[in-house]
Amino acid sequence: MKYTLQVTLTIFVGVLFFGLNGFAQKSSDIKYYPSSNFTMVGKIMDTDKPFHRIDTAKYSNIPEHIKTRLTRSAGLAISFKTNSKSIHAKWCTTSKYPSSGMTPIAFRGLDLYTKINGKWQFAGVGRPKSGENSSEGKLVANLNGEQREYLLYLPVYSETTSLEIGVENTAKITAGDQPFNKRILVYGSSIVQGAGASRPGMAYTSRMSRNTGFNFLNLGMSGVARMEKEVANMVADIEADVYLLDCIPNSSPKEITQRTGNLIKTIRSKNPNAPIILMQSVVREIGFVDEKTGEKVKMQNKNAYDEFMKLHQSGMKNIYFIFGNDFLGDDHEGTVDGTHPNDLGFDRMIKAITPQILPIINQ
Amino acid sequence: MKYTLQVTLTIFVGVLFFGLNGFAQKSSDIKYYPSSNFTMVGKIMDTDKPFHRIDTAKYSNIPEHIKTRLTRSAGLAISFKTNSKSIHAKWCTTSKYPSSGMTPIAFRGLDLYTKINGKWQFAGVGRPKSGENSSEGKLVANLNGEQREYLLYLPVYSETTSLEIGVENTAKITAGDQPFNKRILVYGSSIVQGAGASRPGMAYTSRMSRNTGFNFLNLGMSGVARMEKEVANMVADIEADVYLLDCIPNSSPKEITQRTGNLIKTIRSKNPNAPIILMQSVVREIGFVDEKTGEKVKMQNKNAYDEFMKLHQSGMKNIYFIFGNDFLGDDHEGTVDGTHPNDLGFDRMIKAITPQILPIINQ
Repeated sequence: MKYTLQVTLTIFVGVLFFGLNGFAQKSSDIKYYPSSNFTMVGKIMDTDKPFHRIDTAKYSNIPEHIKTRLTRSAGLAISFKTNSKSIHAKWCTTSKYPSSGMTPIAFRGLDLYTKINGKWQFAGVGRPKSGENSSEGKLVANLNGEQREYLLYLPVYSETTSLEIGVENTAKITAGDQPFNKRILVYGSSIVQGAGASRPGMAYTSRMSRNTGFNFLNLGMSGVARMEKEVANMVADIEADVYLLDCIPNSSPKEITQRTGNLIKTIRSKNPNAPIILMQSVVREIGFVDEKTGEKVKMQNKNAYDEFMKLHQSGMKNIYFIFGNDFLGDDHEGTVDGTHPNDLGFDRMIKAITPQILPIINQ
Repeated sequence: MKYTLQVTLTIFVGVLFFGLNGFAQKSSDIKYYPSSNFTMVGKIMDTDKPFHRIDTAKYSNIPEHIKTRLTRSAGLAISFKTNSKSIHAKWCTTSKYPSSGMTPIAFRGLDLYTKINGKWQFAGVGRPKSGENSSEGKLVANLNGEQREYLLYLPVYSETTSLEIGVENTAKITAGDQPFNKRILVYGSSIVQGAGASRPGMAYTSRMSRNTGFNFLNLGMSGVARMEKEVANMVADIEADVYLLDCIPNSSPKEITQRTGNLIKTIRSKNPNAPIILMQSVVREIGFVDEKTGEKVKMQNKNAYDEFMKLHQSGMKNIYFIFGNDFLGDDHEGTVDGTHPNDLGFDRMIKAITPQILPIINQ
C-alpha cells in the first residue's frame, strides 16, 4: 500500500513537473524587479503608497467612501525598457473577484503595451488568480530580443499593493521615459475609472493618451463622482493643463444644478488660465426602455447644460461643453449593462470627443 | 444590554426593510414562470436537458471534454411577450465565477433584448451572484406597460440548470415567436462560443442573428474545436441550411491539414446541397509580438486555405472561403487578451464577414 502510494506520487509529481515545465522556461531563469525601479506613468500627484492616485491624508475631509476609490490604481502604468524575450509579473490586489460587469483582467489584472514603429501596441495581459490576492504569470513570450519600450497598465478597479516585473536573468531592464505630454485631469465616474473596458489599457483615458500623446489622468471614482465641495477643492488643487469633467452620470439632477457651478468656479479660482471642459453623461442605453432612468439622464444632461450656460453668460472664459448625444452610436450595442460602455461604446465615445478636446489642449 | 441590542436590531431591520423595499416593488408582486412555458431560440437539436446544445447521449463517442462544452448554454435564448412594467429572473448555473477574460454577466449571467420599431434592442442584464450557483434579480423596470416581444439570452460559458422569468402578478406573459429564419450552424472555438463578448447577446452569432434575421446557431466549444472524426460526423448530422466553419483557431497546423478535408467532405456527404463556408482564424493580436504564436496562426490559415483549395480544385461545389486578415482592424485594440475579440473586435469581424456570408445564405 505504501509502495503503491509512493509510485503513484512519483508519477504524479513527474507528470506535474514535465507537464508544467518540460518545455517551458524555468522560473529560475526569470529575475524579478520591484516596479519602483522603473517609471510611473499617469500619476495625479505624489503619494506615500505608490499605487494610490491621491494622497488622501492631504485631503483629510474627503468622505471615506471616496477615499477608498482613490486607492485603486486606475490609469497608472509602469514604463520600462527591456530586451528580454519574455516578460512576467507578480502582483497583489486587495480584491479577489471582479464585479459582474467587468473581466477579472480589467478589475485586478495587468495589461502590457509595447512601442512598435512609434505606436503603442497591445502586447499581453496578466491574468489574476481567482479567489487569491496574489497573482503571478507570463505576460508575453517569444519576443525577438530587441530592446523595446513597454507600458504595463495596473488594475483599474482594485487597489494594487505590490508589483514586480520579471525578465530573463540575462536580459537588461531599465526605467522607461514618460511617454505622454501635458496633464489633462479627467474627473468622473466609473466610466472614467474604466468599468466596462475589457482590460486596464482600454479605459478611455488610457486609450486617449496612447492615441493623442497627451497625458489623460484618471480621476474616475466609481459611483461617487458627485462634485462635493471638498472634492471640488481637491480637483482644483491638482495641477493640470486642462480639466475634463465627466462627472454628470453619478450626480442627481438636483445635485448637478447645485454643484456644477461651484466645481467649475473653484477650479477656475485656483487655475485662472486652464481650459475647463464639461461633458454630458453618456445616454444610458437602459434609459431607452426604463423610462425613469431615461428621464433622469435627460434631466442630468439638461441641468449640466443650464449650469454651464449660466457661467458662460456670466462671462467666464475658456470653458467648453461637450454634448453626449452621439457618444455610443445608434445600435444600442455599446454598453456592458445599459450604463457602462463596453470597448465598442468606448471606441465610439473616443471618436466623438477627441476632435472636440484636441483643439482645446493644443490652443 | 439586551434592550440596547434589541433596539439596535429593530433599527437595523427597519433600515434594511425601508432601504431595500421602501419605494421598490415588493417581491410578492412578482410572479415567476418556468422558462419552459415559453419559446426556446437558438436550439441546435432537441435535448433532454433543456439548456444543453447537443444530446450528447446520441453522440456517445464524442470525447468527454467536448461533451462538457456542449452542456453550456451559449447562443440559447428564451422568446416571450409581456406587458409587465418590470421583468425579473431566477437562474442557476454550475459555475460560480468567471474566467479571467470574461465578465460574470457573459460567463454566467443573462441578457435581455426587446423589439422596438421592428428591431431587437438591448433592454437589461441579469447579474450573477459571485460565489453562488443561484442568482436572482431585476432585469429591467419602469417599462411603459405596452405588450412587447423579448429575447432573454442565457449564459455563454456556464451550464444553465434552471431559469424562471418573473413579471408583475397582474401582467400577462406568453410564449414568443421564433424570431429568426433558416439555420446557419456555426461550428467553432471559444470565439464562436462568446468568450470576450461583454454579455451573452454580444456573442457574434447572436449579434448576426439580430442584424440579419437569420438563425446563427452557436456550436462554439472553447479550446476544443479540432475537427475530430466523431465531431465531423456530429456536425454533418445536424440539420442546417448553411454550415459556417470557424474552427481553425483551436487546431494545430498539422491537424488542419489532416482534418479539414474530412470535415467538409463528411458534411457534404450528408448534405449534398448546403453551402459550406470555411473561415480563417482571427489574426491573434498577441502574434504580432509573440513570434511563435504569429508563425503558428500564419501556418493555420495557410493550411486551411490549402485544404480548401484542394477540395475546390477537385470540383466540390458550393464551398466558400473567408480570409481572416481584416477581421479585427489595424489598431490592435480589438481583443481582450490577444486572442479573443472584445466587443470592438467582434463588431469589426461582423462587418467583415456579413457581406461575404449573406449572399451565400440568400442564394
